[in-house]
Amino acid sequence: MTARNLTELELRALDPRVINLSDGHAHQTLSAESQAGIRTAVERALAGTRPDYPEAERQFLRALTHHTGQEYPDGRTFVTYASSVAMSAVASHLRRMDRPVGVVCPTFDNIPGLLRTLDIKPIPIDERDLTPTVDLARLDLNGLGALVLVAPNNPTGRCPTRASLEELIGWAAARDVLLVVDTAFRWCDDTMRWDLVRAAEEQGADLITIDDTGKALAFADVKAAVIGVTRRLSEPIRAIHTQYLLNVSELGLRALTVMLDPSRPDNELERARKIILKNRAYFDNAIEAQVGSIGQDPRRRDRNPALSVEWLRLPTGRDTLLEECRARQLEVLNGDQFFWAGESLETGTFVRLALMRDPAYFARGIDLFVESLSRTRNVHRRLPLRNRRD
Amino acid sequence: MTARNLTELELRALDPRVINLSDGHAHQTLSAESQAGIRTAVERALAGTRPDYPEAERQFLRALTHHTGQEYPDGRTFVTYASSVAMSAVASHLRRMDRPVGVVCPTFDNIPGLLRTLDIKPIPIDERDLTPTVDLARLDLNGLGALVLVAPNNPTGRCPTRASLEELIGWAAARDVLLVVDTAFRWCDDTMRWDLVRAAEEQGADLITIDDTGKALAFADVKAAVIGVTRRLSEPIRAIHTQYLLNVSELGLRALTVMLDPSRPDNELERARKIILKNRAYFDNAIEAQVGSIGQDPRRRDRNPALSVEWLRLPTGRDTLLEECRARQLEVLNGDQFFWAGESLETGTFVRLALMRDPAYFARGIDLFVESLSRTRNVHRRLPLRNRRD
Repeated sequence: MTARNLTELELRALDPRVINLSDGHAHQTLSAESQAGIRTAVERALAGTRPDYPEAERQFLRALTHHTGQEYPDGRTFVTYASSVAMSAVASHLRRMDRPVGVVCPTFDNIPGLLRTLDIKPIPIDERDLTPTVDLARLDLNGLGALVLVAPNNPTGRCPTRASLEELIGWAAARDVLLVVDTAFRWCDDTMRWDLVRAAEEQGADLITIDDTGKALAFADVKAAVIGVTRRLSEPIRAIHTQYLLNVSELGLRALTVMLDPSRPDNELERARKIILKNRAYFDNAIEAQVGSIGQDPRRRDRNPALSVEWLRLPTGRDTLLEECRARQLEVLNGDQFFWAGESLETGTFVRLALMRDPAYFARGIDLFVESLSRTRNVHRRLPLRNRRD
Repeated sequence: MTARNLTELELRALDPRVINLSDGHAHQTLSAESQAGIRTAVERALAGTRPDYPEAERQFLRALTHHTGQEYPDGRTFVTYASSVAMSAVASHLRRMDRPVGVVCPTFDNIPGLLRTLDIKPIPIDERDLTPTVDLARLDLNGLGALVLVAPNNPTGRCPTRASLEELIGWAAARDVLLVVDTAFRWCDDTMRWDLVRAAEEQGADLITIDDTGKALAFADVKAAVIGVTRRLSEPIRAIHTQYLLNVSELGLRALTVMLDPSRPDNELERARKIILKNRAYFDNAIEAQVGSIGQDPRRRDRNPALSVEWLRLPTGRDTLLEECRARQLEVLNGDQFFWAGESLETGTFVRLALMRDPAYFARGIDLFVESLSRTRNVHRRLPLRNRRD
C-alpha cells in the first residue's frame, strides 16, 4: 500500500519487530516514581468512589501552566483528545471565516491535510519568513485571514523569537488576522514557554494555542490536547468544542498530572529534556565517528537542540538509505511530505529521526542508521555515476 | 451560563457533589476480575518492553465482533478516539458529497451539531418513519444523498427491525444514498447485533457504522470508537481518518479488551446487561410504589428494555421537577434538545435518566427523583391553575 501522507508512513513503524524512530510520539519508559503515581491514579479510577473530573482538569491545567508558562483560564480553555481533534475543531471555525488561511511550510502534513478535508486551500508560508524573525512585508502579500504556525516547528525546530512573535501578534491585531499556534513541541524549548494568549489579549489580537502532551509524555499514548483562546474566540470555539465532547478521561488527566508534577525534580518533562540531550549526543558521536565512511554529514547547522526530533538532509542516497534501514528492521521517517505544498529542489533528501525513546533503544536504532549510511555511501561508490538515482 | 446543547447541560452533572444520572456514559464499577486484568495491562504499559499496537487493535476488534456481531476487516476499519471524532470525520465526507443529509430526530444533538459546524443543514427524519419499520415512500420525498440514524436511538430506544434495516439498505443501494448508522447503543440490544456492513456490501449499498465503547464500558471514560465502512468508502474515509491519528492508546485498547473478554462469562457487557435490568426494575418499583402521590406515570409504553437510558415524558411539571431534583443535588437530563429540529407540542415534557451506574448509586438517585416527582405534583396541586407554567 502506498503511503499517501506522513501518518501512513509512520504506520509501518508500529510493527513490533522493527525499531521505531519514525513517529514523533513519546515512547520512553517512565521513572519509578511516575509509575507509582500512575498506579495510584489507576487504583482510584478502579475504586470509582471519588470521581471528580473538574478537579482533575484543574490540577492538570495547573501543572501544564508550570511547564508551558501559559495560564489556562476557565471558559477560554478546552481540553480535548488530541491535537488533531483540536485542529479539526479550529479548522471548522477557519472554514466559516471564509478568508485565506496561511499554513507554515514545511510542517507535519496533517495540519494542511485537516484543512483540506474541509476544502480550505491552505496557502504555504515559508517558515523562513516566520523564523527567527518575521517578514511582515512578505506576509502582507498574502492577504491572510488566518495564519497557522507550529512553534517550534516540526520537523525543523525553527522558531520565532519571543520579540518576533509579539511583533507578529501586533501585525495580526492590525490586520485582523487570526493566529493559530500549534505549540505541541514547545515543552523543552524555552523560547516558547510563555503566555501567547495573554500577549494577544493585550495587543487586541485573536489567537489560539494548541498544546499537546503526546510529544513529550509517554504512557502508552494516553494524552490530551488543550485549546487556549483569546476572549473573542471563546464563544465560537466553545460552540464547536462541545459538539465533540463532554470530557476526556479523568484517569488520563490524573496520569498526565503525575507525569507533569512540578514538585518532583525528576518529573517526566525534566527527564524528557535529559533524554533529548543524551540521545542527540549519542547520535552526534555516532555520526562524527563514522563521518569518513559516510562521506557526508547529514546534520543541519541550524538545528534546534531542544527539539525532540532530529531533521536531516542527505544530498545523495536518501532513498537507498531508507531501504538499507528497512532491511535492518529500522524505521525512520522519509521527510519529503513535510513539504506539503509540493516538491522542491531538495525533495528526496530529507529524513526525520524521533528522539523521545529510551536511550538504549535509541542507540540500537542509531547504530543501525549509521551502518546503513555507511553502506549507502559504499553502494554509491561502486555505482557508475550514470546509474545513481539521486 | 445558559446551556446551548445537551453536552453543556450534562456538564453540570460532573460536579462531584451531585448524583449524576445525566450523561449517558457508563460509570459503574468494574468486576474484581476486570480490575485485575486492567492492572496487568497497566503494568505491561508501564514496563514498556513489549509494545505491540497492531496486536492490541486486532484483539480489541476480535472481542468487539463477539459483542456486536460485525466483522472489522483490515482496511475497512478505523479505530479512533470517540464517536464524535468518528462522526466528525464522516461529516467531512458528507460535506464533500454536497447532497442533502437526513438525520433522525429526535437524537443526541451533537450529531446534527457536528454537521452544522460544517454548514451542512441536516434534514430531520422523524424516527417514526424509520422504526420499527421504514416508510420508504416518505423517505423518498426528501431526495437524500445520505441518511444518519442511531440504532437503537438515543434517547428513545426505537430501533428498526433487522428486516426493515435490510429493506432500507436495499433502498439506499437503489437510490445511491449513503447510510451512516451510529451503533453506540447497540451493545445490549440483540436487534442490532449483526453485520450491517456485510449486508450493505451484499446489496451494493454504501454504509458506515460507528461503534463506541463509552456507553457500555466504564473505566474512567477510557474508550474507543470504531468506524466500519463498505468497500467503496474505504479510500475516502481512510484519507480523512489518517489526518486525525496514527493510533489510539494501546493501553486503552488492552483495557477495553479485558472488559469485553468474551471468554469470561462475567465480562463487562454481561454485567452491563444485568445493571440495565436491575436499575430499570428499581426505577419501575419506585414509580409504581408512588404513582398515587405522583399522579402521573412518566414511563413510555414503547420503551426499549435493552437501552442504557430511560426516556420519560411528563405532561405536566417537568421544569419544576428539574428544579426539585437540582435542589436535592440530583442531575437528570432535560430532554428537549434531543428534538434538534426545533420545538414541538411536547417540548417541555421530556427527561432522560442514565442507567449505567452502580445500582446503589442509581437507587439513591431514583429515590430523590421520585421524591422530587411527588413534591412537584403537590406543588401543582397547591397552585391555582392559571399560575402553572407547564
